[in-house]
Amino acid sequence: MENIFSDRISDVPRSFIREILKVTIDSSVISFAGGLPSRKLFPLKELQAAANKVFDEDGYDSLQYSTSEGDQELREWIADRYRRTKDLTVQADDILITSGSQQGLDLLGKTFVNEDDPVIIEEPGYLGAIQALSLCKPRFFPVPLSADGIGLDAFEQAVRKHPVKLFYCVPNFQNPSGISYSEENRQAIGKILKGKKTILVEDDPYSELRFLGRMQPSFRRIIPENTVLLGSFSKIVVPSFRIGWVAARKDILDKLIIAKQASDLHSNYFCQRVISRYLKENDIDAHIAVIRDVYGKQRDAMIQAIREFFPSEAGYTQPEGGMFLWVTLPRHLSAMDVFEKAIGQKVVFVPGDPFYVGKKNVNTMRLNFSCMDEETIREGIKRLGNVLKGLM
Amino acid sequence: MENIFSDRISDVPRSFIREILKVTIDSSVISFAGGLPSRKLFPLKELQAAANKVFDEDGYDSLQYSTSEGDQELREWIADRYRRTKDLTVQADDILITSGSQQGLDLLGKTFVNEDDPVIIEEPGYLGAIQALSLCKPRFFPVPLSADGIGLDAFEQAVRKHPVKLFYCVPNFQNPSGISYSEENRQAIGKILKGKKTILVEDDPYSELRFLGRMQPSFRRIIPENTVLLGSFSKIVVPSFRIGWVAARKDILDKLIIAKQASDLHSNYFCQRVISRYLKENDIDAHIAVIRDVYGKQRDAMIQAIREFFPSEAGYTQPEGGMFLWVTLPRHLSAMDVFEKAIGQKVVFVPGDPFYVGKKNVNTMRLNFSCMDEETIREGIKRLGNVLKGLM
Repeated sequence: MENIFSDRISDVPRSFIREILKVTIDSSVISFAGGLPSRKLFPLKELQAAANKVFDEDGYDSLQYSTSEGDQELREWIADRYRRTKDLTVQADDILITSGSQQGLDLLGKTFVNEDDPVIIEEPGYLGAIQALSLCKPRFFPVPLSADGIGLDAFEQAVRKHPVKLFYCVPNFQNPSGISYSEENRQAIGKILKGKKTILVEDDPYSELRFLGRMQPSFRRIIPENTVLLGSFSKIVVPSFRIGWVAARKDILDKLIIAKQASDLHSNYFCQRVISRYLKENDIDAHIAVIRDVYGKQRDAMIQAIREFFPSEAGYTQPEGGMFLWVTLPRHLSAMDVFEKAIGQKVVFVPGDPFYVGKKNVNTMRLNFSCMDEETIREGIKRLGNVLKGLM
Repeated sequence: MENIFSDRISDVPRSFIREILKVTIDSSVISFAGGLPSRKLFPLKELQAAANKVFDEDGYDSLQYSTSEGDQELREWIADRYRRTKDLTVQADDILITSGSQQGLDLLGKTFVNEDDPVIIEEPGYLGAIQALSLCKPRFFPVPLSADGIGLDAFEQAVRKHPVKLFYCVPNFQNPSGISYSEENRQAIGKILKGKKTILVEDDPYSELRFLGRMQPSFRRIIPENTVLLGSFSKIVVPSFRIGWVAARKDILDKLIIAKQASDLHSNYFCQRVISRYLKENDIDAHIAVIRDVYGKQRDAMIQAIREFFPSEAGYTQPEGGMFLWVTLPRHLSAMDVFEKAIGQKVVFVPGDPFYVGKKNVNTMRLNFSCMDEETIREGIKRLGNVLKGLM
């Protein structure tokens, strides 16, 4: 049978990470590949108590169809937290609850991107964003990241030359690189976009997970009109509930709500209520402080082990937060080749390739440090160091 | 600011039903407009018990990210039920769990429909399908329904003349009309599609809710290669969890999984586990029998009241199951005008308009009978009958 499928679905790269997961079913394999939060930190008992209160007190209402915008109490909590922790003027009405922030990307693609529309992404960039936006068949303009943010010259050139619809970025502890945008970099981006129609999508699942340094201002403060925020409870409360959000100005939110209705009517309402209840009755800041402490120590253990076991030619980022660190190998090495060898030593990671559009056999790789203890991280990095030394 | 949005989002009709919901906040308004299951029939205590078992026994695993395909146990239950109740050969591996069957439509659009691809829909057709598929900018070919299924002449002509990508239908207790396809109609459709590449999407949220007549064979028996099934737990267990599924042959499912990953990674895994557990420990057939009994009586009450209070010129369908009934007024009456008058009498419904592509001021209307008791139904139909008599 000849091709019966749409053109767009052929453009979506299959998740390499998904393929890797199959290898990691073997429990003797140490995996730096996933992007999983540490499961033992999930607030299991607290969520169970919250769920029981929702059953007991909200009752049948929590089981019925609900509004596309999402639970009002949850939207108010999110708006309030933006005000308190980031000094942003966001109202509950500016917020749409989504099925994870991944769905935010899907809805933004649907709402903004015509075929061949120019879209700027980071290079390397978040694989899930490349996948979601690929469905709209945009022209991607990947702009290389530097240690302190987007490469400004290439960014300015792309914005000047093309009517860029979206600029997608993860300015805090970026996935996959772990770098953060400096305040200067953010201000320069703001200047370049000022007066333009480009929508800046600030995807920010990690900013609460900062172990070092100082919070930088959101683009919503720098160029509020252009900025759409994506957020998520996956990294600070629970991922399996798939609850995230978009915050955007009213005319944009109205369109996103239409796209949301068409996509899945609304997100799981029961679990929205459970998270609302959880947030009301627990100290989320204390919970986040625990996560930060654990991830910070694991990040330190990984950097320490890299210093000890990796050949000195390998470069690496030193993230101030989040879940990932980025390794740059000497130019002649392909991370894919390293990957093949590493499987034999029972250690895996994500080779850089899927984080690029149209580049293959790159010399970079992503390492996750959130879901393993310090000892396992040390052992895994040791194995990987041996593989690297063998290849160099 | 000139239009910054995508072309496709302008093509999506805003849900009229959503707008109506605002009117129904006034509790003295009797609403036949929604498509809500009866809330008092939700198995609240049983779901609470199941949720507690998931917390106690699955623990942290139920809170972590999971696979795009969905919970294996739930997929096996669905496959097994297809075998037992519909005599269909479906395996767990043929099933993808979705965020409600609405998401199934979104994924099918993404996977199959290029711009301007011909898509056959029923006339009148399910509004949510028109919305979801509109995002792919297809050419819609609405084929009128008759009392026993799709209009075969118009259907055959459309299939002969155009390379139809999808035929979307709700063959059991259709939304909005309440009609069901006869076996003869199904067989004739099968013959017309045989050897064609057209995918027949059998959306089947209601077939378990049959109060009269005999089950008809699924298209999966008649033209298995062409048929994709959509199903949902919203009408038989709980809607707020947003758990539905797609069943399709392997090459199609592979593409749908890619689209699913790009759209929201996976559906709420915790609630998939809760439904699995609920199904394991409860007699779902007994539960469905209760729903059937209640809806059947409410349907009878509605038909009885229509006979009593509507002018005799009004036609109506007599569904054998599901949640909706369809009224046809004399040609010169616009259901929109009736709607405006009806609000004054504190009764609302959905005028036919949003169920058509490119038709306005039609003389048809949809009435829901699932979420009100018999007495309220009688009072609402009485009010509506007075409005109709006043206009005729």
